[in-house]
Amino acid sequence: MSNEKIPYKIYLEESELPKQWYNVRADMKKKPAPLLNPGTGKPVTPEELGVVFCDELVKQELNETDAYIDIPEEIQSFYRMYRPSPLVRAYCLEKALGTPAKIYYKFEGNNTSGSHKLNSAIAQAYYAKKQGLKGVTTETGAGQWGTALSMACSYFGLDCQVYMVKVSYEQKPFRREVMRTYGASVTPSPSMTTEVGKKILAEFPDTNGSLGCAISEAVEAAVSKEGYRYVLGSVLSQVLLHQTVIGLETKAAMDKYGIKPDMIIGCAGGGSNLGGLVSPFIGEKLRGEADYQVIAVEPASCPSLTRGVYAYDFCDTGKVCPLAKMYTLGSGFMPSPNHAGGLRYHGMSSILSELYDQGLMEARSVEQTAVFEAAEKFARVEGILPAPESSHAIRVAIDEALKCKETGEEKTILFGLTGTGYFDMYAYAAYNDGKMSDYIPTDEELAKSIATLPKVE
Amino acid sequence: MSNEKIPYKIYLEESELPKQWYNVRADMKKKPAPLLNPGTGKPVTPEELGVVFCDELVKQELNETDAYIDIPEEIQSFYRMYRPSPLVRAYCLEKALGTPAKIYYKFEGNNTSGSHKLNSAIAQAYYAKKQGLKGVTTETGAGQWGTALSMACSYFGLDCQVYMVKVSYEQKPFRREVMRTYGASVTPSPSMTTEVGKKILAEFPDTNGSLGCAISEAVEAAVSKEGYRYVLGSVLSQVLLHQTVIGLETKAAMDKYGIKPDMIIGCAGGGSNLGGLVSPFIGEKLRGEADYQVIAVEPASCPSLTRGVYAYDFCDTGKVCPLAKMYTLGSGFMPSPNHAGGLRYHGMSSILSELYDQGLMEARSVEQTAVFEAAEKFARVEGILPAPESSHAIRVAIDEALKCKETGEEKTILFGLTGTGYFDMYAYAAYNDGKMSDYIPTDEELAKSIATLPKVE
Repeated sequence: MSNEKIPYKIYLEESELPKQWYNVRADMKKKPAPLLNPGTGKPVTPEELGVVFCDELVKQELNETDAYIDIPEEIQSFYRMYRPSPLVRAYCLEKALGTPAKIYYKFEGNNTSGSHKLNSAIAQAYYAKKQGLKGVTTETGAGQWGTALSMACSYFGLDCQVYMVKVSYEQKPFRREVMRTYGASVTPSPSMTTEVGKKILAEFPDTNGSLGCAISEAVEAAVSKEGYRYVLGSVLSQVLLHQTVIGLETKAAMDKYGIKPDMIIGCAGGGSNLGGLVSPFIGEKLRGEADYQVIAVEPASCPSLTRGVYAYDFCDTGKVCPLAKMYTLGSGFMPSPNHAGGLRYHGMSSILSELYDQGLMEARSVEQTAVFEAAEKFARVEGILPAPESSHAIRVAIDEALKCKETGEEKTILFGLTGTGYFDMYAYAAYNDGKMSDYIPTDEELAKSIATLPKVE
Repeated sequence: MSNEKIPYKIYLEESELPKQWYNVRADMKKKPAPLLNPGTGKPVTPEELGVVFCDELVKQELNETDAYIDIPEEIQSFYRMYRPSPLVRAYCLEKALGTPAKIYYKFEGNNTSGSHKLNSAIAQAYYAKKQGLKGVTTETGAGQWGTALSMACSYFGLDCQVYMVKVSYEQKPFRREVMRTYGASVTPSPSMTTEVGKKILAEFPDTNGSLGCAISEAVEAAVSKEGYRYVLGSVLSQVLLHQTVIGLETKAAMDKYGIKPDMIIGCAGGGSNLGGLVSPFIGEKLRGEADYQVIAVEPASCPSLTRGVYAYDFCDTGKVCPLAKMYTLGSGFMPSPNHAGGLRYHGMSSILSELYDQGLMEARSVEQTAVFEAAEKFARVEGILPAPESSHAIRVAIDEALKCKETGEEKTILFGLTGTGYFDMYAYAAYNDGKMSDYIPTDEELAKSIATLPKVE
């Protein structure tokens, strides 16, 4: 089909939406390393995980064999309220760059949570409700996940308790209000409502909080209350599973128009968006059916894939969660204070870590002023104000399109536009005022936090 | 076609998008009253208007005969970046209300400006560019229009100068930053950059500003600079014309599925959204082809249709604009300080005023706590966080759906969901904290501001 016929936005019909999630682990010969019980050093059992997570989600977390898992009708019904998300041909960006490359992006920001996070939030809330639970607890950093979960819980009538990293709680009062509007309770973390929070506050009374610390508090809150479980918006294999609706829709839309991407680019914090976008494509690579260049983009200030080590580490600061084998900077790592936006987790999804280790995926790190420069360029020509996180992928997509301009190659570039930046105007203001700076951690700093890794045989 | 087959969201194909705007004045036997020159009391000439507005827009403003006006290809191309907007079947809201009514809404918030305002902004920027102008000036209150215009100007490489009502400038720093990100300059109004601003500041040094005052400043800035014209986001007939893409898309989507609304509801400030949504339907009424109940919803604190008079009035506080015959509360009217959100203009589109006067449209006023109650209910079941302005229409749609529940009538209700509330979290916070109050102006207050109307024969 000629390019002239490709519309600006490809929307699938409702009947074409995915009815199953895709579990990439089923097609991996070498599977991701199992989660370990930090006490025994042995793989965690479903019973152990069941204390923290909903039963059905535990099954999904441990399922390495079923390639496809049915999406329950109730979740499909919710998906239909805001999905399909559009696959957009970036005609205006191509023109502004003067590139022969064909650029596509899958835009996940057209829902009130403002990002792809809702895809997993609704699934996790559904399984919690189905199990007869009263509510769930979680943490949120930039706030996208907390917003998505509060929307999902409101839909199913579940209580939603969000521990919000203190610095975000204070800098993003409007994010907090959105969550409250959807009925969630929001607590700045660290707080005095948990033992781990009290302990961290006693040691660091002036701390701004961190994602790892908020995770520890949310887990403690869940396990110490009757009828509650903990839910998480990234990193876990169950989350990547739910997020495959992104990649499945993208692939269906591209197949419909006979488009094959040469290159697939996504930003990577814990890996939920990237994993969801690329899984169906990586599946084809694993089965030898097709080849794609896959690029994970991370902040230079939090470079887990490009400068971390592949080892077992704690998932949270309080060390209450199972150990995961992943690319990590050490659970004590925190990005420098000038780091804006999300993508600040010290580790990475164990699925993506293993795929990266097997050479099925590349990684690049980018600095934040260059990211905001790309964000602003994109906003001005494509009209969408991107989230800082998503703009990491935009940066590399633009760089690759400019390379094509030099070489004359007509590559097809696909990237994930995970969300919008309406709640990130502090960061945009800093950029607009020329007050944004970059920071790359030194080798010594990274060595210090990596030295805190637990010893696992 | 049975209801079971109607999807959650109806998206038109690109080939089905409108290629012409619809000019409802062509089908009106009694036309809206002409704009008058405040100095001479005579209808303004194209030459007089050409000092303030772009030439092509002057033609559109004065065109009462052509029912359809071609949308230039460059504007259609921009529309394709964010249009069609979805026509949504509110299955979840219907279920939550337990109503037999069928509720549809046309959602215009899925673009970075967060509202329908972009539909006219891009048209006005296009004609300014085509005329070889350097830039445009405008005013903005809640900020949706200024954001839309800054996006449109950025796309065409035009300078964009926005006078932002001072209270909004201070309370909505993030709105301001979005405009700056798109390259606009934003000045709090009243300011010392214009004569009219200086005069108002001399008289009322502590004023929070008003829309009428910001209009006066923007007009002065445009006419006193070479290569600039003034643009306006509502009220004018040209704006209603551009906004008919909303109604034309809605009608095309409904026709495709054999849906006929019994009732069409929209919020009304200056009338841009309501006029755009209902024009094609009112056209059918005017031509005797169909009948619809059309309801304009306005804030009880700024009730131009329900409590104003139909008379010639100034469009702006500084009295520099032509006089328009409209339903008005007097150009000195200002909503009480507890009024949140937009819909705070003292007058109303002259087209809508005339249609209302002819009995082709009804009007209702609603109080803001009831509006936010509807907004929160809607957000929790439909997932979208609505703008306070749009929520006026939601309130009446819910009220009508609940009436159907009592009577058992299966009415088809259509309403316009003009935008999202991401930048209105101050107001949501007040509602969440139980600190929101209502205010209805007394008859004495209204009589006082209405007494300031100019004398026109």
